[in-house]
Amino acid sequence: MRPKPNATPDDLAFGVNPCALALETGAARQLLYLRETKNDRVLDLARRARDARVPTEPVDLHRLDELTGGGVHQGVLVRLRAIEPADLRAIASRPAERGSLVLLLDGVTDPQNVGAVVRTAVAVAVDAIVLPRRRGALLTPGVHRASAGMSFLAPVAAPQNLAQAVATLKEAGYWVVAADAGDGSQLATTFDWPKKTALIMGSEGEGVSHLLRRESDFAVALPMDPRVESLNVGVACGALAYLFRRQWPAQG
Amino acid sequence: MRPKPNATPDDLAFGVNPCALALETGAARQLLYLRETKNDRVLDLARRARDARVPTEPVDLHRLDELTGGGVHQGVLVRLRAIEPADLRAIASRPAERGSLVLLLDGVTDPQNVGAVVRTAVAVAVDAIVLPRRRGALLTPGVHRASAGMSFLAPVAAPQNLAQAVATLKEAGYWVVAADAGDGSQLATTFDWPKKTALIMGSEGEGVSHLLRRESDFAVALPMDPRVESLNVGVACGALAYLFRRQWPAQG
Repeated sequence: MRPKPNATPDDLAFGVNPCALALETGAARQLLYLRETKNDRVLDLARRARDARVPTEPVDLHRLDELTGGGVHQGVLVRLRAIEPADLRAIASRPAERGSLVLLLDGVTDPQNVGAVVRTAVAVAVDAIVLPRRRGALLTPGVHRASAGMSFLAPVAAPQNLAQAVATLKEAGYWVVAADAGDGSQLATTFDWPKKTALIMGSEGEGVSHLLRRESDFAVALPMDPRVESLNVGVACGALAYLFRRQWPAQG
Repeated sequence: MRPKPNATPDDLAFGVNPCALALETGAARQLLYLRETKNDRVLDLARRARDARVPTEPVDLHRLDELTGGGVHQGVLVRLRAIEPADLRAIASRPAERGSLVLLLDGVTDPQNVGAVVRTAVAVAVDAIVLPRRRGALLTPGVHRASAGMSFLAPVAAPQNLAQAVATLKEAGYWVVAADAGDGSQLATTFDWPKKTALIMGSEGEGVSHLLRRESDFAVALPMDPRVESLNVGVACGALAYLFRRQWPAQG
């Protein structure tokens, strides 16, 4: 029986880059690869897994297609250990000499979008990404894939709900900024970013939920041609994060 | 016979948003819709087409799947008039009181990425997007789809080659800025953006070509965690465009 595309197990990652990063970060507990692969990068991953005493198993194409629900696996997948969520309270109480940015994803569920945000988040050195669990999983195979494996480097926190995370962050001195195109929003391009910013990104259609919008200290919007209703959430997140980093550089 | 996914005709757009914008901008010359559709938005598009004297034709699902190569057409497609490319020389010589941004795409060919860049470009009010023609076509159905139809609002120029476009822009007083993570690049976050900027985005793997890099006045890079090799080109383009707009706002 062919599994549905969305019925793949959640404790795996597939594709060369995600598997490489899962191995590097110690997240992999088993590696499966295409028996007849001629892909040097896959063969190298299998070698590296054996060197790290991670069990490997050559399997046929059918098995890989089945496990990944027909995903672009490039001939390799890893089974993952349970990923430990980041401790938001501990992170939030660290000294933030250079400024600290925490991202909260409110209703952003499409793996492609979550993956893009995760990749950007690692690039701009956010201190944490906060998102609700999906079907009990912190991150899904689709997110590992769409983030090119950056998900294994990302500090991901998964509280009971986002309102709780917002309360934790406020207690630790963060200002809460909602990315919201509604009335009363300030221009993100001229906004004076707080040194400790918790930035809430909503979904493209819905925006930030009413509850979290009310808990926010500020709302900012990227100026845009009114004919464009919204930007892709990954693009908007990248633009906002770099406007923050312009004011509060991570390095140097 | 089933056509290959990349063998769809280039003179069409499909999906509700792209078709709506094609109709609005007068780019549609015929509208085909699923005979048995119950989608109100599709029925509304068919009505609007008839009001605008654009011929409509109800067709079966097989025909839509065939024409779009199995794309997500939502039950509607339009055949397009030849899209007139924007006149780069005329655009470049306009007075640029508020600052002018022109985007050049060098080797960015994935329709998903081109579409994302086009959507962002319309949002930040670029004066032109310059890209080489693909198989003779200015924009492809995949780009219309990925840009949510914003492609029909975008001023797209298609010169013989990008070097020629760069020469045209330089003559008109533009400074050429390559987005390039190589040695000698300035930080994009602290860069003093010229009032008339021609920004060259390269492909994710290859970056900006050697030839165009040499023709550039500046190179800028977004600061990032060294473990992230690159950002998605749509995300990088959004971040750079908004850093430009911070300095040279389009409105107000």
